[in-house]
Amino acid sequence: MSYIYKRRPNYYETDMMGIVHHSNYIRYFEEARIAYMRSFGCDVLEMEKLGVIIPNVDAYAKYIIPVKFGEDVDIKVGLTTFNGTRMEYTFTVYRQDGSIAATGHTMHCFVKSDFRPVSLKKALPEHYTKLLEKLEKPEQ
Amino acid sequence: MSYIYKRRPNYYETDMMGIVHHSNYIRYFEEARIAYMRSFGCDVLEMEKLGVIIPNVDAYAKYIIPVKFGEDVDIKVGLTTFNGTRMEYTFTVYRQDGSIAATGHTMHCFVKSDFRPVSLKKALPEHYTKLLEKLEKPEQ
Amino acid sequence: MSYIYKRRPNYYETDMMGIVHHSNYIRYFEEARIAYMRSFGCDVLEMEKLGVIIPNVDAYAKYIIPVKFGEDVDIKVGLTTFNGTRMEYTFTVYRQDGSIAATGHTMHCFVKSDFRPVSLKKALPEHYTKLLEKLEKPEQ
Amino acid sequence: MSYIYKRRPNYYETDMMGIVHHSNYIRYFEEARIAYMRSFGCDVLEMEKLGVIIPNVDAYAKYIIPVKFGEDVDIKVGLTTFNGTRMEYTFTVYRQDGSIAATGHTMHCFVKSDFRPVSLKKALPEHYTKLLEKLEKPEQ
Repeated sequence: MSYIYKRRPNYYETDMMGIVHHSNYIRYFEEARIAYMRSFGCDVLEMEKLGVIIPNVDAYAKYIIPVKFGEDVDIKVGLTTFNGTRMEYTFTVYRQDGSIAATGHTMHCFVKSDFRPVSLKKALPEHYTKLLEKLEKPEQ
Repeated sequence: MSYIYKRRPNYYETDMMGIVHHSNYIRYFEEARIAYMRSFGCDVLEMEKLGVIIPNVDAYAKYIIPVKFGEDVDIKVGLTTFNGTRMEYTFTVYRQDGSIAATGHTMHCFVKSDFRPVSLKKALPEHYTKLLEKLEKPEQ
Repeated sequence: MSYIYKRRPNYYETDMMGIVHHSNYIRYFEEARIAYMRSFGCDVLEMEKLGVIIPNVDAYAKYIIPVKFGEDVDIKVGLTTFNGTRMEYTFTVYRQDGSIAATGHTMHCFVKSDFRPVSLKKALPEHYTKLLEKLEKPEQ
Repeated sequence: MSYIYKRRPNYYETDMMGIVHHSNYIRYFEEARIAYMRSFGCDVLEMEKLGVIIPNVDAYAKYIIPVKFGEDVDIKVGLTTFNGTRMEYTFTVYRQDGSIAATGHTMHCFVKSDFRPVSLKKALPEHYTKLLEKLEKPEQ
């Protein structure tokens, strides 16, 4: 049920340590999540136009092996929590040799443009169903 | 008529060359321009709420001496063109020894939220007057 | 024992939701940590020049109230873990009305330029002592 | 002789105007230039490892039509100046309907790790030749 998002780090994403700055992983997670959601019919732009905005509730990244410029990464993303009010994505950033560069997760909620909570099931029932189908089961 | 905006470069703004990445100067220019405009009563947030948005028409930066983390800069900003339809700001980035790290300029226009042009003189006459007063004269 | 880092969000840090993009808080945390460390004699640039680099082991942010452009924040930072091998900083982002916009924490380790671990106590004993003095006690 | 670099703008690259922030085009230009250089055997990482660093001398972007999230762009990049000491790339950012969103150019020089100028012809003669072959002729 997971999805792989391929990413080539950019020169401007490196820092004076010579590695991808840690803040960029939070951005990569967003890219991977949005690409994944789009892949199964939950386009965040379309959802915004339909009145549902999806801000972050939290974001976490654990850095295991620094990634350098010139090293592509594969970001595996899965939907690990979803209850109609909140959803959590879990990420694993792989280097090309299969080793894990980083892991992380981000929690999201569903709000209207004024940031008041909205029930996704009522507001966008088709998107609700698509998300429910993608929810990873504990045993998987 | 000009204004000095002080800035301490951030660690995440450096790149693997060990210097502030060149793209960040375009961001520093925006910070300096917005702080300057605010200093003489042209707050861009207030102007947006009044219906006038100020996108960039262009942006230019010339890099003379690289700036490293730990080196603070003073950014001198002045309004060098203004005719009610467009305005241009000119920037000089000084290092603490007085040498010039970079120069640049950014041109802006005035639009509504749908990006259609708006006459600042008609839409916000008080802001128009304040900007006109700050326009640098050629002989200065 | 904590420190307050004041920050004015920049226009380019907002996103199309009209709020400061969540990834920027991870950057604010770095700014606050580096300013705090500098305030008590642990300048990261000086430490790097002495051979000790301080990468992130992890980073977490919890978003409570969105921050908009025009709203300044006060970031309270404290050293909540330190054992010579790792250190953790804890952050609270306050809005001007005293409400909490976000919280978070970042864990760091000490390495040489080749990213191999180094004992701070042996490599930089004076910095080790300064950090130990700043470690927040559970009862505080 | 030119090259097309495809780019999907990221959510975090938008600003509160609802468009891609203008500073990101300077970053897109870097991505496009580095991808183009890599395509003809001038990998900037390899060149850095061989002792030649390629900082920006200047950067310019002209913004014609704002790009929104969800709109992919094609960035055409060509090498428009090259004399062994400096090189300039020229960019055109196309929207999917063929209209031009932005144009720009960036000038670069060749330096050693201490930022002293280096002759590319002497330091990296093979790369020098490859670049010369890609230089666009005025009549093209």
